[in-house]
Amino acid sequence: MLSLSVIAEIQEELQALEDELLRQSEAPDPLLTQVTRQMVQAGGKRLRPVFVLLGGKCCGGRLKDLLPLAVAMEMIHMATLIHDDVIDASPLRRGRPTVWARWGERISLHAGDYLFARALRLVANYDDPRIPSLLAQVSVKMVRGELEQLESAFTVDITARDYLRRIRRKTALLISASCELGALVAGGSNDSIVALRRYGRYLGMAFQLTDDVLDIVADPEILGKPRGSDLRQGVITLPAIYALRSSPHRRRLAILLSKPAKGDAEIAEAVELIEECGGTAYTLKVAEGYLRKAREQLLWLPPGQPREILEELTYFVKARGF
Amino acid sequence: MLSLSVIAEIQEELQALEDELLRQSEAPDPLLTQVTRQMVQAGGKRLRPVFVLLGGKCCGGRLKDLLPLAVAMEMIHMATLIHDDVIDASPLRRGRPTVWARWGERISLHAGDYLFARALRLVANYDDPRIPSLLAQVSVKMVRGELEQLESAFTVDITARDYLRRIRRKTALLISASCELGALVAGGSNDSIVALRRYGRYLGMAFQLTDDVLDIVADPEILGKPRGSDLRQGVITLPAIYALRSSPHRRRLAILLSKPAKGDAEIAEAVELIEECGGTAYTLKVAEGYLRKAREQLLWLPPGQPREILEELTYFVKARGF
Repeated sequence: MLSLSVIAEIQEELQALEDELLRQSEAPDPLLTQVTRQMVQAGGKRLRPVFVLLGGKCCGGRLKDLLPLAVAMEMIHMATLIHDDVIDASPLRRGRPTVWARWGERISLHAGDYLFARALRLVANYDDPRIPSLLAQVSVKMVRGELEQLESAFTVDITARDYLRRIRRKTALLISASCELGALVAGGSNDSIVALRRYGRYLGMAFQLTDDVLDIVADPEILGKPRGSDLRQGVITLPAIYALRSSPHRRRLAILLSKPAKGDAEIAEAVELIEECGGTAYTLKVAEGYLRKAREQLLWLPPGQPREILEELTYFVKARGF
Repeated sequence: MLSLSVIAEIQEELQALEDELLRQSEAPDPLLTQVTRQMVQAGGKRLRPVFVLLGGKCCGGRLKDLLPLAVAMEMIHMATLIHDDVIDASPLRRGRPTVWARWGERISLHAGDYLFARALRLVANYDDPRIPSLLAQVSVKMVRGELEQLESAFTVDITARDYLRRIRRKTALLISASCELGALVAGGSNDSIVALRRYGRYLGMAFQLTDDVLDIVADPEILGKPRGSDLRQGVITLPAIYALRSSPHRRRLAILLSKPAKGDAEIAEAVELIEECGGTAYTLKVAEGYLRKAREQLLWLPPGQPREILEELTYFVKARGF
C-alpha cells in the first residue's frame, strides 16, 4: 500500500510527527503505554495528522503549534480503530495482531476510551473554543456513521445516497475536521477555513471510496486483511450497490450479499460479479469526481508549497485505487 | 435505595433536570434516541448533575446556564455505565435489562461513545476553556481507574492505598469535577472553586466506599443486582482488604477471593467472613471521615440554601450505608 513517504516535501513533518506520537505514547500506566505504543508502531498513513499540518501551514501556522493537534487527530483515529476491531473481532490489522487479539475486549474498550480522552486533553490546550466544539460535533457524527453501517448490514436495498451519507460521517468528516482544525489553529482566513473543510470532505469521500474498492480488488498480502472483508461483514459498499442495480446476475448477488454467514467461495463469487459488471470501475469514477472537487477548493488557498502538496495528495488517493 | 427526592428543596431542579435529560435524549438516529431514552428512564440518583446545579448555585449561577452542563455530566456517567455493562456482561442494572442485554455489544459500544461525544458537544458550548480541559483530564483519569481495577482483579495483596487511589479516579473525580464545573460556569471565586472541588472529591470517596459496603450487605432486591457482585468479579474493595488483614480466617478468605470462578456458597462465605470481622463497619468509618472533611470544605462557600443542601447531601450519602 502506498505510503505518504513517497512525498519528499513532507519528510521532515512526518518525522516530527512520529517523534511526537512516540513521546505522547508515554502514559502514566505501563499497560496504556504499551497499547498506545503498539498502535503507533503499527504505522499507518498518518493522513489525518498530515492534513492538520498542511492545513495549518497553508494558513501560515508553525509546526510546533500544530503538532499537538495533529497527534490528537491520530489518537482519535486510533481509538476508533481499536473499538472497530473489538466490534468486528478482527485478529489482524496491517498484518499485525490487533489490540483486541493481544489484550482482549475489556482492555481494548478502555484503551480506546483512553486514547479518545487523551486526544481531547491535547486539544483542550488550545484557546479557540471552536476547536473542541468542532471535534465534539464530528465525534457525534462519526458514531452515527458507524451505527448506520451496523443497522444497514446485509441490507441489499441500501441506496447510493445512504452509502454516501454514511461514509461522509464515518470517514470524510474526520479528515475534513483535520484540515479545518489546522487552519483554525493557524488563524487562517474564513475563506481558507471553508476551502480546507470542503477539500478535506471531498478528499475523505474519495479516500473511503477507493478503500471500498481496494477491499474488493486488492492483493490480501498488501491489504493486510482478506479480500471481501466488508462483504463478509454485510457492509454494502458502492461497488456492490452499483452491481446490485446493473449486473445481469443481480438477483444472485443480492442472495449472496444478504446471507449473514458466507463461505469463501461465496465471497469470491460475489467479488467476481461486482468486478465483471464494472462496480469497482464505476466507484473509482465517482472517487475521481470528488478528487476534482477537492482540487477546485484549493484555488481559494494562498499559493505555495503546502497547497501544492495538498494537490499532490489528491493524486496519491487516486493512485491507491489502481 | 435512597433517592435524592427525599430532599424537598431540590425538587424543582430535579424536575427541570429530568425534562432536559428527556429533551436531550432526542437523537437524529431513532436507535440512539431509544438507547438514550432507556438510560434516562432507568432513573438513577442524578448525583453528578445535582452537584453541577448546587455547585453553580452556591456561586450565584442560574439554572438555565447550568442545565446543559448538568445533562452532559449525567451523559458521561451513562456512557461509562453502558461500557461497564459490556465489560462485565451484566444483564441487569437497577433491576432492568441493560443496553448490552437488550441491544448487544456492538450497539452498546457505539452508544457509549455517542453519549460521551454528545456530552462533549453540550460542554463545548461554554466559552471558558477550563471547562473542556477539566473534563478531558478527568476522563483520562477515569479510564486509568477502570484499568487499575481490571489489572488488580483477584489480587488479594492490594493495599488500602491502592484501593483509595483507584476509587478516587474511578468515581470521586467525576463528582468532584461536577461540583467544580458548576462553580466555573457560574463564575465562582477561586476559594469557592477549590472548596467545591475538594468537597466533591471527599464526598465522592465516601459515596464509593458506601457503595462498596452496600455490595456486601444490601438486600439484593433493593440493590437491583446480586450481593457480592464485586467479589464475584474479583474486585477487592476496602471491606475485603480490611478483612484480609484482620480476620482470623484471613487465609481462607484470601483463597476464596483470589478464585476466578466462585460458586454462590463461596460468595456467601466470603461475605460472612468480611462482615463478622468488622470489614464493613471499618469501611463506613472511613467513609464517615471523608464526609466530615467534605463538610469542612463547605465553610469556604457563601452561606445560603445551596450550601445547606450540599451539607444535607453528606448525610444522605451516610444514610445509604446503613
